[in-house]
Amino acid sequence: MPGGTTVVSRRRLLGTAGAAGAGALVVGAGAGAAGAAAVRGRPEPLTSLGSASAPFHGAHQAGIVQPAQAHGHLAAFDLAPGTDRRAAAALLRRWSAIAADMMAGRQAQDDTSGVALDAGPSSLTVTFGFGRSFFDRTGLADKRPAALEPLPAFTGDALDARRSEGDLWVQIGADDALVAFHALRLLQKKAGDTARLRWQMNGFNRTPGATAHPMTGRNLMGQIDGTNNPKPSDADFADRVFVPEDHKGADAWMAGGSYAVVRRIRMLLDTWDHLSLERQEKVIGRRQSDGAPLSGGTETTPVDLDKVDRDGALAIAGDAHIRVASPATNRGAAMLRRAFSYHDGFRDDGAPDAGLLFIAWQADPMKGFVPVQRKLDRGDGLSRFLRHEASGLYAVPGGCEKGEYVGQRLLED
Amino acid sequence: MPGGTTVVSRRRLLGTAGAAGAGALVVGAGAGAAGAAAVRGRPEPLTSLGSASAPFHGAHQAGIVQPAQAHGHLAAFDLAPGTDRRAAAALLRRWSAIAADMMAGRQAQDDTSGVALDAGPSSLTVTFGFGRSFFDRTGLADKRPAALEPLPAFTGDALDARRSEGDLWVQIGADDALVAFHALRLLQKKAGDTARLRWQMNGFNRTPGATAHPMTGRNLMGQIDGTNNPKPSDADFADRVFVPEDHKGADAWMAGGSYAVVRRIRMLLDTWDHLSLERQEKVIGRRQSDGAPLSGGTETTPVDLDKVDRDGALAIAGDAHIRVASPATNRGAAMLRRAFSYHDGFRDDGAPDAGLLFIAWQADPMKGFVPVQRKLDRGDGLSRFLRHEASGLYAVPGGCEKGEYVGQRLLED
Repeated sequence: MPGGTTVVSRRRLLGTAGAAGAGALVVGAGAGAAGAAAVRGRPEPLTSLGSASAPFHGAHQAGIVQPAQAHGHLAAFDLAPGTDRRAAAALLRRWSAIAADMMAGRQAQDDTSGVALDAGPSSLTVTFGFGRSFFDRTGLADKRPAALEPLPAFTGDALDARRSEGDLWVQIGADDALVAFHALRLLQKKAGDTARLRWQMNGFNRTPGATAHPMTGRNLMGQIDGTNNPKPSDADFADRVFVPEDHKGADAWMAGGSYAVVRRIRMLLDTWDHLSLERQEKVIGRRQSDGAPLSGGTETTPVDLDKVDRDGALAIAGDAHIRVASPATNRGAAMLRRAFSYHDGFRDDGAPDAGLLFIAWQADPMKGFVPVQRKLDRGDGLSRFLRHEASGLYAVPGGCEKGEYVGQRLLED
Repeated sequence: MPGGTTVVSRRRLLGTAGAAGAGALVVGAGAGAAGAAAVRGRPEPLTSLGSASAPFHGAHQAGIVQPAQAHGHLAAFDLAPGTDRRAAAALLRRWSAIAADMMAGRQAQDDTSGVALDAGPSSLTVTFGFGRSFFDRTGLADKRPAALEPLPAFTGDALDARRSEGDLWVQIGADDALVAFHALRLLQKKAGDTARLRWQMNGFNRTPGATAHPMTGRNLMGQIDGTNNPKPSDADFADRVFVPEDHKGADAWMAGGSYAVVRRIRMLLDTWDHLSLERQEKVIGRRQSDGAPLSGGTETTPVDLDKVDRDGALAIAGDAHIRVASPATNRGAAMLRRAFSYHDGFRDDGAPDAGLLFIAWQADPMKGFVPVQRKLDRGDGLSRFLRHEASGLYAVPGGCEKGEYVGQRLLED
């Protein structure tokens, strides 16, 4: 997991620059609060937030195993009419070059925008994927993976086609908003006449350091969300998330890649907030305060789906979200969820236009997202508080080495 | 400046919790990058980001002298028809109580939302203001400050009335997105039947720690923006920003308060980006890289408006933004700009819907924003890259002491 280690370290260790900063921190603490005014002009302690970086090159693209950043941009592009494989290859080459520069904290060639100047890379990741329509447009239909079959329709869907799918998908994440915005702008500009923006969404997560110690994040319903995510240290993590390196067939180019399912899930927060805390916890199956399952223990205690309360009722209700979504009831289906929350203001009725930019990573959507969502669609008590408003499925190729670009194994042969 | 010191300290010193964290940082640095995987389960070092807080009580409301946070929400509310002064007073009392709790990192009474659980106050500030229409609705027209006269129309305005003005204005800022969102939601809910959301906007700034040392922020045009802001250490800072404590007359209740001018200024970034860097710098009058004026020196060198280049041309062009906006050409007019950038996706033509949520603080808008904007409106070369799309002017009363609420001197007499 070469991509993962660097960013694990950012939240727990300091790099070279950070070590100097640590000294400054100690000096600052010694000076005490009374000295605050006196140190006004002094350099602020270097933190690892700005200087942390994820590697662009490697077996997998960045932006999958790294913790989700504080700011995210999702964007889909459609190729201009008449764009052929060569033009698409040139675009991916341009995009890869500037992504590599930006992720390393370098100014990309011809980039005269100053938006990200002064800031470090701030854990920027840029991840590229191909939608189903990409392959028809570029004459590559024979290389399209079977896994890109359209997702089935779910009864809870209220999808807006204009904000769904697309030929190309870009995921951007960074712990600084200007670094993330700059990356989005530059990638859009460098698309030139080859591809045009189809849709774009903004999301966020906790800022590193907002909590006293690292913990699973919360969503906008206030729930701890992601407890049962596969961990990079799990023995079967790579099997569940990544297409095997020895993958064969027409889509052998996907070796080391992954499939991203993207869903804009609006939360009906006004309806949700009308429930008592006790009812909310029953809908989820976990305690709000610490995420412990209602069957007992702490956040990470395995859920006991059979546990019965004194009054004979199941501790985890039959339609509780964690029961229906549980790997135990889904024959081991697993996906890595790496979401951003979103908030696009308020709707005309005063309800927040807010929820989750759900992103699930898996080696095969038919073994990850699809069977779980089929079950949730039928039996999840949480689903009446959610609206799936946009959807996308993308083939995200493996990473590339220096001198190569993302998707090269598909686009050049 | 009691409000300012605490937050100055957050970026330069560590509080009690942070001091323990500093020790952890040093230990972490000693372990070295090779130990990254081994420390996976260890607590992350406490930083000052989450634990920093601004005081709710004091001579001035928070959210004016404190550095602008990484996340901001602006919202305007209109009173429900028939709402009287007593109901408005009860609303401000409710809002003040929950703002005081949230800013101290306490869970407000009856707040069962878990969105901000685990996170520290993260420098949350909540600031309340009254729009011109508030006074008619509540029968308080005789106490309306003369300074709330409608702003003059400017030729560059393209204002959307639905996103302008409003009876009540709330400014929320925090360095964590979930803390800020939680505050917005809770304030909206506690408005109950008394007031309804009129408009709401989201903004952002750099995350603390994204740059190696503290510096003036950049806007989405890539320019260092805010160099000439008055500093709390300036001898005349309070005179320029705050209504005097001994203010007399019908609006004596504004003593210690300030007037906020709010403008949603969209940047025509695609047009801007077509300029060469050299042209952009001439439009602004400063170097993009470090913000130094084109008359020479560094960012903080006073601008020499008379300097002539070797070829006889003015170093700072006649229509350069910093010349037209300069206090020297505005008879000492001054305001404290404390802005957030915004990015609400892209417009139908592919151009970003992005720019500045400009917020200017001043003791008197007729001596601050208005004369400067009049000059900019006529002669600023930057104005053709900007559209003012929404506008608001609010009387922001002084702070309150414990047991009081914001606006009490207006609403109870």
